[in-house]
Amino acid sequence: MPVNLQNPTTQVSEILPISGINIGVAAAEIKYQNRYDLCLITFDNASIGAVFTQNHFKAAPVQVCQQHLTKGKISGLLINSGCANAATGEEGIKDTLLTCKKLAKLLNCQAEQILPFSTGVILERLPIDKVNSGIDKAIDDLQSASQQSWLNAAKAIMTTDTVAKIYSDRNDIYTATGIAKGSGMIHPNMATMLSFIATDAKVNPELLQELTREIANETFNQITVDGDTSTNDSFVIIATNQVGDLITSKEHPDYSELHKLLLKITNSLAQSIIRDGEGATKLVTIKILGAKSTKDAKIIADSVALSPLVKTAFFAGDPNLGRILAAIGNAKIWDLEIEKISLAIGSSQANTKNIIVVEKGARAANYHQKSEIEVQKIMQAPEFILEINLNQGEAQTTIYTCDLSYDYVKINSDYRS
Amino acid sequence: MPVNLQNPTTQVSEILPISGINIGVAAAEIKYQNRYDLCLITFDNASIGAVFTQNHFKAAPVQVCQQHLTKGKISGLLINSGCANAATGEEGIKDTLLTCKKLAKLLNCQAEQILPFSTGVILERLPIDKVNSGIDKAIDDLQSASQQSWLNAAKAIMTTDTVAKIYSDRNDIYTATGIAKGSGMIHPNMATMLSFIATDAKVNPELLQELTREIANETFNQITVDGDTSTNDSFVIIATNQVGDLITSKEHPDYSELHKLLLKITNSLAQSIIRDGEGATKLVTIKILGAKSTKDAKIIADSVALSPLVKTAFFAGDPNLGRILAAIGNAKIWDLEIEKISLAIGSSQANTKNIIVVEKGARAANYHQKSEIEVQKIMQAPEFILEINLNQGEAQTTIYTCDLSYDYVKINSDYRS
Repeated sequence: MPVNLQNPTTQVSEILPISGINIGVAAAEIKYQNRYDLCLITFDNASIGAVFTQNHFKAAPVQVCQQHLTKGKISGLLINSGCANAATGEEGIKDTLLTCKKLAKLLNCQAEQILPFSTGVILERLPIDKVNSGIDKAIDDLQSASQQSWLNAAKAIMTTDTVAKIYSDRNDIYTATGIAKGSGMIHPNMATMLSFIATDAKVNPELLQELTREIANETFNQITVDGDTSTNDSFVIIATNQVGDLITSKEHPDYSELHKLLLKITNSLAQSIIRDGEGATKLVTIKILGAKSTKDAKIIADSVALSPLVKTAFFAGDPNLGRILAAIGNAKIWDLEIEKISLAIGSSQANTKNIIVVEKGARAANYHQKSEIEVQKIMQAPEFILEINLNQGEAQTTIYTCDLSYDYVKINSDYRS
Repeated sequence: MPVNLQNPTTQVSEILPISGINIGVAAAEIKYQNRYDLCLITFDNASIGAVFTQNHFKAAPVQVCQQHLTKGKISGLLINSGCANAATGEEGIKDTLLTCKKLAKLLNCQAEQILPFSTGVILERLPIDKVNSGIDKAIDDLQSASQQSWLNAAKAIMTTDTVAKIYSDRNDIYTATGIAKGSGMIHPNMATMLSFIATDAKVNPELLQELTREIANETFNQITVDGDTSTNDSFVIIATNQVGDLITSKEHPDYSELHKLLLKITNSLAQSIIRDGEGATKLVTIKILGAKSTKDAKIIADSVALSPLVKTAFFAGDPNLGRILAAIGNAKIWDLEIEKISLAIGSSQANTKNIIVVEKGARAANYHQKSEIEVQKIMQAPEFILEINLNQGEAQTTIYTCDLSYDYVKINSDYRS
């Protein structure tokens, strides 16, 4: 059950089409039956920003994207779910290029103008015939993107997701709509996730690339389900260059409006991935304060967020706070001063006060059985906040994670079968 | 269900008493009811080797042990389960010292001659009165250690363990018997584990300390259940100085016999911890070959052994090998050459051949549906071997891990309640 996350089918009226974007989907039966699993997003004269997985095993489509992006103009994205085409060697690259060629022919452009994306099982060859006939069907479906076609695209890229992830927003100048998928293998530095956001803004490609990287660092790279970074992670921002002045630098008066809008959409998508984390029953915000450096803060945040013992205590809603301290102590920060650390637990609801449970590295003087019951109540809600103050510097970070439940094990031991 | 691990109650006849060791146990009701939870091991004129957790949050007893070891002669160990006395600040230290003082008075020695050890829930104060009356009872029970008293000691230190862990062996010169506990929070650099081994050998204390560290690195530091290193890990070797020549250097002709014997006992204890890993249904041996350095090999082994996606695939007995490749790719080895990596899966049974599933970073040419069924069969057995050859150097390592099952989640979300 996703944590406080609605299925967007009920909110289709809130999806905002983006001028210049066409979408077509198909049920290609690559792995899944009776659902969309292939999606085309096409455009003319758009600027593209893109960041990819840092896993050494980069899937074939990731490698091809990175090549194609060096060559100039991009005209379309070809996305499939069901097969990741990862760890497939030279043949995987050839397969991906064949599908790009097929689509390019139908779009009357060059294969290198296509960016391919795949998500699904690793180590299996892409079923070329199915993908190619899916491309034919998706071309038939291709049209100026409507609310429904955006929703279809969000559904086509799902794997173990239980909810399609789509957000739209606008400000005085720009409109943006984004989709994302991902619920396992989620970890900072790009998760098993694909995300595609389109905006009608007019942006210079180099600046959009920089903006895309910055936004990824502030959003997708701050979430973790299980610490596993996938082979296929890709995050793309498409600016269709239709509205407003051409923005060429961060100093442009409209830049901050664009940044804010894209950050908001991306943050919503990133949070929705955690809310729909495999087996997740809780969304936990981990704030690290008072670190000597942001790097230290992130290492400690990860150590806590990834500890299976902490995550199972989250699942139990049990203030087994010693596990959190043990996880902090396990972070490889050699000059960490344990005797300065404090820890508070708080509700995600507004106007509530955090309860201090650890002070100076030990159980807080005021934290007795009564307050333990209060903390338990907070931790049994679907969302809560863990605030760890190292009291050793000025740096801080905030990350989002979920718990480790029976269902995580169930989903991941059933996934292929 | 522990993996191929017998409860030693049936093998009590195989336990070898060690000349010079006295054991007494008690049911102190610190947390558990109707079972032993406190244990004394006393001796005269013994040499002691000891290594402790590298977690920054060192429990009070660990801090006290480290102080007492600098002061000279040790006369006894005081061990309790049920409360870890960790993250308890200055008061935790005082509590531990009070219990050492209590025992010292009864043994007619100084408090600094006692080494204290605790395991159990973190962040809770030690119930001094219960421990002290437990010490009285254990003193009444104290006697030259019999087979039964060794077994009682192995049981007294258990927490979530399902099987008491005890091994004995002898060679032409020496006899050794050891006990251990631990099944969650298990990770290289000492796990949530306590282990105490006694031998009748005559060894210089400095050499025994070096030997203890070496053996820990070869055994306990090569196992991982969940990546969580505890606050209380302690491993102690007691040499009662009763048999043979005094060994003062590694060049002594009897040194290698002693090393071999202690390594064998420790290795059996370390493996039994993994076999009894929380919720474990599989014992998986991960061999990394062809690494540029041992450090690289260990980082990759850990990345694979700790990936929740890999561990759930182990649980399923599913050759979802892409997850293993993704975990290798996630290890922070920046010059890793993916296109050289091969991966084989093999049975733990003698005279069986490993099946090569990945060659040159991609699915092996001969690995088709038929061989996938064979690999699945191997992975559904309770023990199997994963051999990853990086083909980039000469360094190697072997670690042992278990799978991630429903029961891991169950045990750890129920633990405190």
